Amino acid sequence: MGSKRPDRRGFLKGSAALAGGLTLGATEPALGQLPDPDSFTKGTDDLVAYGKRSSFVKSVRIAHPPGSRPSPDAFGLVFHVAAPLQDSVGMITPSSLHFVGTTRGSFIPEIDPREHRLMIHGLVDRPLVFTMEDLKRLPSVTRPHFIECAGNRSRPHHKTVQESHGMTSCAEWTGVLLSTLLKETGVKDAGKWMVAEGVEEVKGASSIPIEKAMDDCIVAYGMNGEAVRPQNGFPLRLLVPGFEGIFNSKYLRRIKIVDRYYMTYNDYGHLTREPDIAALGYQIGPKSVITFPSAGQQLPDPGFYEVSGLAWSGGGAIRRVEVSTDGGRRWMDAEIQGTAHRMAHTRFRLQWNWDGNETELMSRCTDELGQVQPTRAQVAEFFNVPADPSFTVPGQDNSIQRWRIASDGSIHNGYA
Amino acid sequence: MGSKRPDRRGFLKGSAALAGGLTLGATEPALGQLPDPDSFTKGTDDLVAYGKRSSFVKSVRIAHPPGSRPSPDAFGLVFHVAAPLQDSVGMITPSSLHFVGTTRGSFIPEIDPREHRLMIHGLVDRPLVFTMEDLKRLPSVTRPHFIECAGNRSRPHHKTVQESHGMTSCAEWTGVLLSTLLKETGVKDAGKWMVAEGVEEVKGASSIPIEKAMDDCIVAYGMNGEAVRPQNGFPLRLLVPGFEGIFNSKYLRRIKIVDRYYMTYNDYGHLTREPDIAALGYQIGPKSVITFPSAGQQLPDPGFYEVSGLAWSGGGAIRRVEVSTDGGRRWMDAEIQGTAHRMAHTRFRLQWNWDGNETELMSRCTDELGQVQPTRAQVAEFFNVPADPSFTVPGQDNSIQRWRIASDGSIHNGYA
Repeated sequence: MGSKRPDRRGFLKGSAALAGGLTLGATEPALGQLPDPDSFTKGTDDLVAYGKRSSFVKSVRIAHPPGSRPSPDAFGLVFHVAAPLQDSVGMITPSSLHFVGTTRGSFIPEIDPREHRLMIHGLVDRPLVFTMEDLKRLPSVTRPHFIECAGNRSRPHHKTVQESHGMTSCAEWTGVLLSTLLKETGVKDAGKWMVAEGVEEVKGASSIPIEKAMDDCIVAYGMNGEAVRPQNGFPLRLLVPGFEGIFNSKYLRRIKIVDRYYMTYNDYGHLTREPDIAALGYQIGPKSVITFPSAGQQLPDPGFYEVSGLAWSGGGAIRRVEVSTDGGRRWMDAEIQGTAHRMAHTRFRLQWNWDGNETELMSRCTDELGQVQPTRAQVAEFFNVPADPSFTVPGQDNSIQRWRIASDGSIHNGYA
Repeated sequence: MGSKRPDRRGFLKGSAALAGGLTLGATEPALGQLPDPDSFTKGTDDLVAYGKRSSFVKSVRIAHPPGSRPSPDAFGLVFHVAAPLQDSVGMITPSSLHFVGTTRGSFIPEIDPREHRLMIHGLVDRPLVFTMEDLKRLPSVTRPHFIECAGNRSRPHHKTVQESHGMTSCAEWTGVLLSTLLKETGVKDAGKWMVAEGVEEVKGASSIPIEKAMDDCIVAYGMNGEAVRPQNGFPLRLLVPGFEGIFNSKYLRRIKIVDRYYMTYNDYGHLTREPDIAALGYQIGPKSVITFPSAGQQLPDPGFYEVSGLAWSGGGAIRRVEVSTDGGRRWMDAEIQGTAHRMAHTRFRLQWNWDGNETELMSRCTDELGQVQPTRAQVAEFFNVPADPSFTVPGQDNSIQRWRIASDGSIHNGYA
C-alpha cells in the first residue's frame, strides 16, 4: 500500500485497478438519502429560462493582484479578475469564471449589439464597416483557445494556484476568421501590420504582424456556446491565438492595416520600435501548472490521488507533459486528455500514491515546436535577474511551478 | 451575384472569398461609438466572483411541451425545459441553457455534496460506498457528450427548432469511468445488467447491459468546467453516452448489478422483458437539424448566408453531414467543425447563396457505423404509423427535418 496509515477496510487490497491504496471514506448505505421534498428548489420561470449553479458550490473568481478591490471610478485602480484554477476540471473555463484583464478600471461597457460596428480600414483596397448581423452571415469557425495575461506569474507570496496562475482561461470561441474579412477588404502590398481598437477609454492593443492577422485570428461573437460575455468583450472580441492577452482586444470596433509597427498605450512589454525585438514578447511560451493538488488545498491522508493540471503554449498544441512527484529527480509522462488543441488549455493527469512524506510536485510541458517549459532559474538567467523568485522578470515568466506537500498534507507554494 | 436585389455598393463584386453576394448593412464609420461612461456597468464584488451575460442577450430556455408551465407541486405536471438551439454556436451548450428532462415534476433536489453517497452493490464481490471526496481522488476522464430525450421530435405545430429539437444538449463532462469503480467492486459472473437510482421521487432508469457499464459510462461530477448543475443532477450524474436521456440518472446515489433485465418506473419505451427487443430502444439514432436558418427566424434579404446546424448519434462519431437547399433534389457535403467526437454534438456548416425564391432546407447525417439519418416516411414505415407527421411514432423519431423558406424570407416548419 505504501501508506502510513493502515487501509481501513482492506477490501481494496490486491485491487488491480489502482496503483496505490484508496482510502474510502464511508461505509453506511446510501438508502437514507431522500431529501425532504420541502427542501427542493421549486421550478420557476427564471429557472426555466436560464439555470443557476448549486448554492453549495462556492468556487469564485478573485480580484487580482490578491487583495485589490473593484475601482470606485472608471479611471482609478487597474484591476484584474483571476479564475479559480484549483477547482477547474476538463479544458473549458465556464464563462462566469473566465479570467478578466482590464486595460483601465473595472467598468464594463454596456453595448447594444444593434448599434455596434466593426470598421476595417487603412492600407486596404475597400474599407468596410460590418454590423453584427453582417458578421453572423459570414463563414464561421469554432475553436478552443486560451487567453493569458502576460503578467500571469507566480510570486513567493502567492498562496494558491488562483493567485499564481489564475490570469488564464480557455473557452470555445466562435466567429469569423479575420482573414475572411481581410480577403473582402483586400490588403495593399504596403500593409504589413495591423492595430485593433476596442470601445474602452484606453482603446488599443499593440501592433500585430499581418501574417498573424491572415493566419488564425478570429473576430469572435460566440463564447462557450452563447454570446461573448460583457467582461470578455461583448458583443465582439478579437482572438489572437497564443499571443499575450493584451492583443485580444475586447469590444472590437476598429482594425487598421498599417505599414509598420506602431506603439500604442498598451505596449507594456514591447517598448521598442524594432519589430524583430518587439515581436519576441508576443507569443506565450509553453507553460503548465498542477491545479490539484495545489497550494492552499489539503490532502486528507496518504494514499491514492489523481494529480491534475493544465498546460498551454502560444507555439501550438501541447505534445507532452511530465510530472515529478519527488521535487524534480524523476519525471513521469502524464496522460493528456483527448486530443490537444492548438493554443488551448490541455488537461493532464497522473495517478499518484502519496506515501505521507514531505515532497514537491512539479510539471513541465513540451509543445509541438519542441519548446520545453523552462525552470525559474533559466527564466531568471534569460532576463538577467536574480534567480530568487521574489524578483519579477521584465517579460513573461512561464517557469515550472513547485508545490510543496508537507507531511500533514498541507500544500504550499514551493517558491515561498 | 444570384441576388434579386442589386448589390448596394458593389465593392464585393468579384470577391474571391465568398461564393455569393454579401449585402453589408452599414457604411457609417465606427468612430462615434464610445459609450457614455455613466452607462458602464460598475465593477462589483458579485461581478468579480461570478460573471453574467449581457442584458442585451435574450436567449432563453422554454418549458416543454410548448406552453406548459412549472408545476405548482412536486408531484404534478411532468414538464421539461428545451434549449434555444436557434441561438446555438459551436459544440458546447452553456450549462445555464442545457435542456432539462424531469421524471416527475419540476422540483430540484438541494443536495449537500458532503452528505451525498454513491453505493454500488448487488452481484459484486465487494459492495462499496463512495463519498464525493473519494470519487474526486480516482482517475478521471473529460469527454464531450450529448444527452437527448427520446421524445425529442418535430411535430407539425412546432414553430421553432427549440420546440422541435430543443430536448438535446452537449456538455464537456468530467468524472470517473464507471468501469473504474466496477473494477474496484468486482462484478460476479451472474452480473449481466445494472440499474441506477437517483435522489428523486421516481428514482430509477431502465436496465443497462453490463457491457455498456464497462465500456464508456461516466459517473460525472463536472460539467463544462465546473460542478454539475442542480437541474442536471448535482452533485453526481450517470452519463450513458448515446443512450436515451432517461438512462443518464441525475442525483446518482445507487448502482445495483443484477442478473437480468428489470423493468422500472421509467421503462417508457421498453415495455418488454425481452432484452434483445428492449435494447432496440436504447441507442439514439443518427440525427441532425439545421439551427440557422430555422423556423421562426427571418432572412432579411437574398444573398450569402452560412447554413449551420448540429448532428449527433448514439452510434459514435458523425462522419458526414449533407445539406440540401432545394428540398432534397441535390445534396452537398457540409463542413464539419474540428474533430467530430463520439456521442457528441457536431457542428456543421455550408455556405449558401439564397436567390430569394421559396425553397426547403434539409440536413442528413451519417455516423461512424454507416447509419444514415432516415426520412420521416422511413421512420413512419418502420413504426407502422401513417407518414403524416402529425402521427407520433412509438419510439425515437430521428427523421430529417425540413425548413421551408418563403420568398419573403420567413421560415417555417416544413412538416406543418
